[in-house]
Amino acid sequence: MDLNEVKKLARERMKGYCGICRECDGNSCSGKVPGMGGTKTGSTFKRNYEALNNVKINLRTIHDAKDPNMSTEIFGKKIDIPLITAPVTGSSINMGGFLTEDQYSDDVVIGSINAGTFAMTGDSGNPQFFIDGLNSIKKVDGFGVPIIKPRENEKIIENIRKAEESGALAVGVDIDGAGLITMALHGQPVGPKTVEELKELVSSTKLPFILKGIMTADEAELAVEVGAAAIVVSNHGGRVLDHTLGVAEVLPEIAKKVKGKITILADGSVRQGVDILKYIALGADAVLAARPIIWGSYGGRQEGVELVINNFKNELKQAMILTGCKDVKSINETKIVNLNK
Amino acid sequence: MDLNEVKKLARERMKGYCGICRECDGNSCSGKVPGMGGTKTGSTFKRNYEALNNVKINLRTIHDAKDPNMSTEIFGKKIDIPLITAPVTGSSINMGGFLTEDQYSDDVVIGSINAGTFAMTGDSGNPQFFIDGLNSIKKVDGFGVPIIKPRENEKIIENIRKAEESGALAVGVDIDGAGLITMALHGQPVGPKTVEELKELVSSTKLPFILKGIMTADEAELAVEVGAAAIVVSNHGGRVLDHTLGVAEVLPEIAKKVKGKITILADGSVRQGVDILKYIALGADAVLAARPIIWGSYGGRQEGVELVINNFKNELKQAMILTGCKDVKSINETKIVNLNK
Amino acid sequence: MDLNEVKKLARERMKGYCGICRECDGNSCSGKVPGMGGTKTGSTFKRNYEALNNVKINLRTIHDAKDPNMSTEIFGKKIDIPLITAPVTGSSINMGGFLTEDQYSDDVVIGSINAGTFAMTGDSGNPQFFIDGLNSIKKVDGFGVPIIKPRENEKIIENIRKAEESGALAVGVDIDGAGLITMALHGQPVGPKTVEELKELVSSTKLPFILKGIMTADEAELAVEVGAAAIVVSNHGGRVLDHTLGVAEVLPEIAKKVKGKITILADGSVRQGVDILKYIALGADAVLAARPIIWGSYGGRQEGVELVINNFKNELKQAMILTGCKDVKSINETKIVNLNK
Amino acid sequence: MDLNEVKKLARERMKGYCGICRECDGNSCSGKVPGMGGTKTGSTFKRNYEALNNVKINLRTIHDAKDPNMSTEIFGKKIDIPLITAPVTGSSINMGGFLTEDQYSDDVVIGSINAGTFAMTGDSGNPQFFIDGLNSIKKVDGFGVPIIKPRENEKIIENIRKAEESGALAVGVDIDGAGLITMALHGQPVGPKTVEELKELVSSTKLPFILKGIMTADEAELAVEVGAAAIVVSNHGGRVLDHTLGVAEVLPEIAKKVKGKITILADGSVRQGVDILKYIALGADAVLAARPIIWGSYGGRQEGVELVINNFKNELKQAMILTGCKDVKSINETKIVNLNK
Repeated sequence: MDLNEVKKLARERMKGYCGICRECDGNSCSGKVPGMGGTKTGSTFKRNYEALNNVKINLRTIHDAKDPNMSTEIFGKKIDIPLITAPVTGSSINMGGFLTEDQYSDDVVIGSINAGTFAMTGDSGNPQFFIDGLNSIKKVDGFGVPIIKPRENEKIIENIRKAEESGALAVGVDIDGAGLITMALHGQPVGPKTVEELKELVSSTKLPFILKGIMTADEAELAVEVGAAAIVVSNHGGRVLDHTLGVAEVLPEIAKKVKGKITILADGSVRQGVDILKYIALGADAVLAARPIIWGSYGGRQEGVELVINNFKNELKQAMILTGCKDVKSINETKIVNLNK
Repeated sequence: MDLNEVKKLARERMKGYCGICRECDGNSCSGKVPGMGGTKTGSTFKRNYEALNNVKINLRTIHDAKDPNMSTEIFGKKIDIPLITAPVTGSSINMGGFLTEDQYSDDVVIGSINAGTFAMTGDSGNPQFFIDGLNSIKKVDGFGVPIIKPRENEKIIENIRKAEESGALAVGVDIDGAGLITMALHGQPVGPKTVEELKELVSSTKLPFILKGIMTADEAELAVEVGAAAIVVSNHGGRVLDHTLGVAEVLPEIAKKVKGKITILADGSVRQGVDILKYIALGADAVLAARPIIWGSYGGRQEGVELVINNFKNELKQAMILTGCKDVKSINETKIVNLNK
Repeated sequence: MDLNEVKKLARERMKGYCGICRECDGNSCSGKVPGMGGTKTGSTFKRNYEALNNVKINLRTIHDAKDPNMSTEIFGKKIDIPLITAPVTGSSINMGGFLTEDQYSDDVVIGSINAGTFAMTGDSGNPQFFIDGLNSIKKVDGFGVPIIKPRENEKIIENIRKAEESGALAVGVDIDGAGLITMALHGQPVGPKTVEELKELVSSTKLPFILKGIMTADEAELAVEVGAAAIVVSNHGGRVLDHTLGVAEVLPEIAKKVKGKITILADGSVRQGVDILKYIALGADAVLAARPIIWGSYGGRQEGVELVINNFKNELKQAMILTGCKDVKSINETKIVNLNK
Repeated sequence: MDLNEVKKLARERMKGYCGICRECDGNSCSGKVPGMGGTKTGSTFKRNYEALNNVKINLRTIHDAKDPNMSTEIFGKKIDIPLITAPVTGSSINMGGFLTEDQYSDDVVIGSINAGTFAMTGDSGNPQFFIDGLNSIKKVDGFGVPIIKPRENEKIIENIRKAEESGALAVGVDIDGAGLITMALHGQPVGPKTVEELKELVSSTKLPFILKGIMTADEAELAVEVGAAAIVVSNHGGRVLDHTLGVAEVLPEIAKKVKGKITILADGSVRQGVDILKYIALGADAVLAARPIIWGSYGGRQEGVELVINNFKNELKQAMILTGCKDVKSINETKIVNLNK
C-alpha cells in the first residue's frame, strides 16, 4: 500500500463527502456542513488555505543542515514530528460512514503513535463519540488528548474525570464549538465561557488544559490568564463561522503576545510538510492536521494514517534541508516571507 | 417546508431569471437588467459582494454573550432583528412572473411582520406597483415603508399623501433611480434632486423621510442638512450604474460623518446573519435584504419569507455568540477586521 | 434594427475572429494577432480592461445635473460626445472578411459623423488600406483624421500630402507601430522616431499633428516638445507588445505633466459610456473606441456604427446624471476613486 | 517547418506530460513531478510565472533604437542573445520518452550553438545522463556547460574532471537539488553544501564555477565569497520545493548585493523575448530557458531548438525597439515597472 492507493480508495469511500482534490482548498466542498466543507460560503476554510499560501519559503542550500532533527516535546512528551492529529468526530455524518466512529478513532489514535506522534479525539452531539475516543486512548495507555465541547462546566468536569481515568496526556475544550446551536436542541447546550468559568475548568484537573479555537491576541492572553497549558489557534477548519481570518494571518500577533508563556498549536489547512514549517516559523510550537489524516484512515485504516504521517515527515525533512533548518528550534521568521497584510 | 425546499422551488420558478447560486455574487446574472443581475458587466453587484467579503470577523468565545439580544429600534418601532426587507418591484419583468405584483408585496409585507421586522415597498414605471405596495402596507395597519422613485416633486408629494393615508411608518425616495432614462420615455421623468427640492419633500410630511441611494460622505451630510430621518447606503444592488464602489467600502467614511445624526441603513449583498453583523460593525444601524427575501416569496410565499428572516435570526445569533456581542449596541469595529483599502 | 440584433449579426459574421463576449476583456481572444486579440498572452489587452475596471465611480444624486451637456471641441470642431472612432484596418485579416476594407472605412467614417463625432482611419502593410480610409474621409468633406504608420519620414510626408488633399481635419502617426517587424519584410520598414524626425513631420504640415501610442510621461513631454497637437495614450489595444501597463494606469501621470499643453486622447477598452467618464476624470480630453465600432459596422453597417455611438451617448448621459456632471468640463477626479496603484 | 508545426508535433509527442498550453503558467501540470509540472500544488512554478507577469514594460517609441544589438558576453564568449539553454534531463521520465536522453542532449547542445548561444546539460539519479550531456558538449568542441547534482564533493570533483576533459566552457552545481531525497535511496546522496565544501569545489578547477539555485541575497553573497563565477537565480522551475517566491521577486535584491561581482543568470518562466528583457532590467546578465527549448526538441529536433531560439531573438528585438534599448547594456530599471511587492 502506498499513499496514492490510500488516496484513491479514500476518494471512492468518501464520494459525495470529500473529493480529496488536487488542491484541498475548500472550494468544491464549500457549504458542506455536515460533510467535509467550510460553513456557508466556505470562505473561512478557503481563507485558511490562502493565508497559508501567502506565506512563502526562502529556499537556501548553502549550510550544514544535512540531516535535520524533526523531534520536539509537547506536554513533556517527545514526538518525532511537530504534528498532532486533530480531534475529529462524525465518521458517518461528515465522512460518509464507511467507518464506524470507534474504527476511525482507533485508526487515528493508534496510527498516530505508531508514526511517532499522538492524536486528539473529539466530542459531539452524540456523547458516545467522546467515549469512543477515550476508549481508543485507553488502548494506547493514555497517549492521546480528548477535547471536550464547551458544554456546561459541570458536564465538562465529568468528562475531564473520564479523561483522567483514561490516563490521557492532557485535556481540552474546543471553545469555538460555542456556536453549535443545534447541540442545545439535543439537550446538550454549549456556549462561550467567561474567564471565571475557564478558571474553574483549569483548576478542576492536574492535566495540562488546552483551549482550542483561539483567533485573537486578546483571547490568547486570556488563555494565559486562566492558566491553560496550550492554545490551538484555530477557526475549527472553517466549519463554525463564515468569513473569519485565516489561521496564518492571526498567528504572528498571537505569538508576539504569548509565545513562551503557553504552548501554541496551529490548526488550519496543513496539507504537506512545508506547511508545518510555515506555521512554526510564524510562531507555533507544533501544528494539528485533520483532513489528510482522515484520508489516511478512510483509504488505508491505521496503516494509512501512518503512511500519511510518515509522508509528512519526509516532506518536512526535505523542506528543512532546503531552508537550512537543522532542528525545530531553527525554524524561525528568517525562513519565510509572510505576504499576509 | 424548510429553507432548502423553499430554495429548490424558487430555483424552478425563477429559472432564467435567478439561479439562486451557491454564492450569490453577481457573476452568473451579470448584465441581466431586467432580471436579477447587476447592470452592464455587473461589476457593481460583484463589488458589493467582494467588499463585504473583505470584511472579516474576529472569532471570540471567552466572554458572557451566551444569549444575545438582537432587537433594535427603527423610527421608534422595536424590531426583533436589525434587518428590513428592501423595496423591490417587477415580479413579472425581473423575477419571471410566477407571482403577481400584489402577491409578492403581500408576501413580503406580511411575512416580514410575522418574522418580527417590516418591509419597504417600491415604485416603478408602472405606477400600479406603488399602489400594490401601499395596499399590502394597509393590510398590516401601516407597519411598512413605501419608497418612491425620484419623480418630479409634485408627483412625489402626491405619493407621500397616499403613504400617509396608508398609515405608513415612514416614507422615502430611492434617489439613485435618477438614471432610469427609460422612465422618462414612459412620460414619468425621474432625476437627481437639489438640496432645495429635497427640503421641500422633507417638509411636506410629518413622516420620517428616507433617502435611499447614498454612496458618498458628502451626500450623507446633505441628507442630514435637508432633514432626512434616515439614509440607505446603497447602489441599488448594482442595477443602475456599473463600476461603483461596494457598500461596505463607503460605509465607514459615511458613518464617521453622520453616525448618530441620522439613521444609517446598509443595503448590498446581505446573504446571511454574519453580513448583518458586518454592516453594523462598519457603522450601520440596520440593514436591508432583497434577494433572499425574493427567494422566500417565490419558493414559499409568505411562509417562505418568514423562514428566510427566521434563518437570518438564527445565523445572526450564532455570529453574535461567536464574536462576543450581547446586543446590537455591542457590535462595533473591534468585532471585525476591515480589509477594504 | 437595435443593438442586440447588431451584436448578434456581428457575432455570426466575426465567428472565429471575435466572440463579442459578455465582457470584452481580452481573455478568449488572447494571442489572436492577426485577429481581434492582444499579442502573445494578451496581457496588455487584459491589463487595459482591468486597469479601467480599477477606476470606480462615485454615485451621486443630490445635485442639479439633470440634463448634462456631452459636447466638446477637438481640433476646433464641436462633437456631440467626447468619443472618436479609432483607426483600424484589416477587415479581412483581423475581422473575418465579411466586409471589404473600403466598406468598413465608409461605415465608420460616415456613421461616426451621422452620430455626431468623427473617425480616424488607419494605415497598413497593404498601402491601399490607407487610400481606402482617405477616400472615405473625402466623402465627408475631410471630417476625419488619417493615421499613418511610422514609416520612413519621406513616405510619411507623402501620405501627409495626400491627407491634406483630402481636406482632413488633422493627421497623425501611430508611433507604437514601430515594432511591426513584418512590415519591413514587405519592403515597408517602420520604426521608432527621434525627436528630430518628429519635428520634421510636424513642421511639414499645417494640419494638427497627432502622436498615437504614448504610454509614459516623458514621451508625452517629448510630444509637446516636437509640437504635436495631440497625443493618444494607447498601447495599440495590446496588439504590439505584451505586458505593458494599462492605459488607465499611466494616464494620470501623463495628464499631470502635459494637460492643457496638448490634447490628450485615451484609447483602451472603452466599452460603455461610463468608461468615457472615467478616462476624462483621469485626465483625457476625449477617448477613442475601436472594438464596439467594429461590431457596429459588421453587424449593422453604417447604421450599426450610429447605433453604437448613440448608445454610448445614452450611457454617458446616464453616467453623468448619476455622478453629478453637468458638462464635460465637470468630469474630474472627484467623480472617481482610482484604485490603480 | 515553422514554430506552429513544432508546437503541434511536440504537443502530440508529449501528450500526458505537457499540454504546451496557450499560457504555460504551471496550472494544468501542477504536481506532475516526474513530468513537466511544479512539485505538490505547483505554487512555485505558478509564482515564477505570476511574479514575472507583475513586471510591466514601458512602451516607448521616441528614440533612436532602430536596430538593437542583442549580443552579450558570458564567460568570455560572445553570444547573439542573452539567453542560454537550461540544463534538463529525464527525457523518458519527465517528457514522455519520444526522444532518448542523448538525442535530446544533442538537439539542445547543437541547436543552441547553431542559433548563436549555448546550452547547459544536466545530471540525474541515472549517472549516464550526465555522460550523455558531456558527449553532446564534446561534439561542439566544448561549447557548453555541464551542471552537476550536489553529490558528495568527491563525486562532484570526479565529474568536474570529466567536464574539463570535454573542453567545457564552465561547470556548475545545481545546489537546489539538495532536497532530492530519492537520490540517496539510489545510493547517490545529495545535500546542501557548506561554504567550506563549496570553496573546495571552486578551487578544484580552473573553469568558471556556477552555483545554480540561489534565491536569497545572503546566499548570493556567499556565492561571491566562495569564488563562484556565476549564480543562477532559480528555484528549479518550481520542481523541488512548493511555496517559494518567484525568481522575479527575489532578483532585484540579489542584484543590489552582487551585481558586477558575479555573473547573474535568471531562470524561471522565460517564455518570450520580452521576458528576457524583464529579467535583465531586474538585474540579470542573461537568462536560462527550459520548457520552450524542450518543445523545440520534441517537436522539431535540432531544427526546432533553433527555431525556438531564433523566435526569441525576433521577439527580443521587437521588445527592445518598443522600449528604446539599443543594446543589452541599455536594458535597465527605467524600462520596466516592477509591481512585485
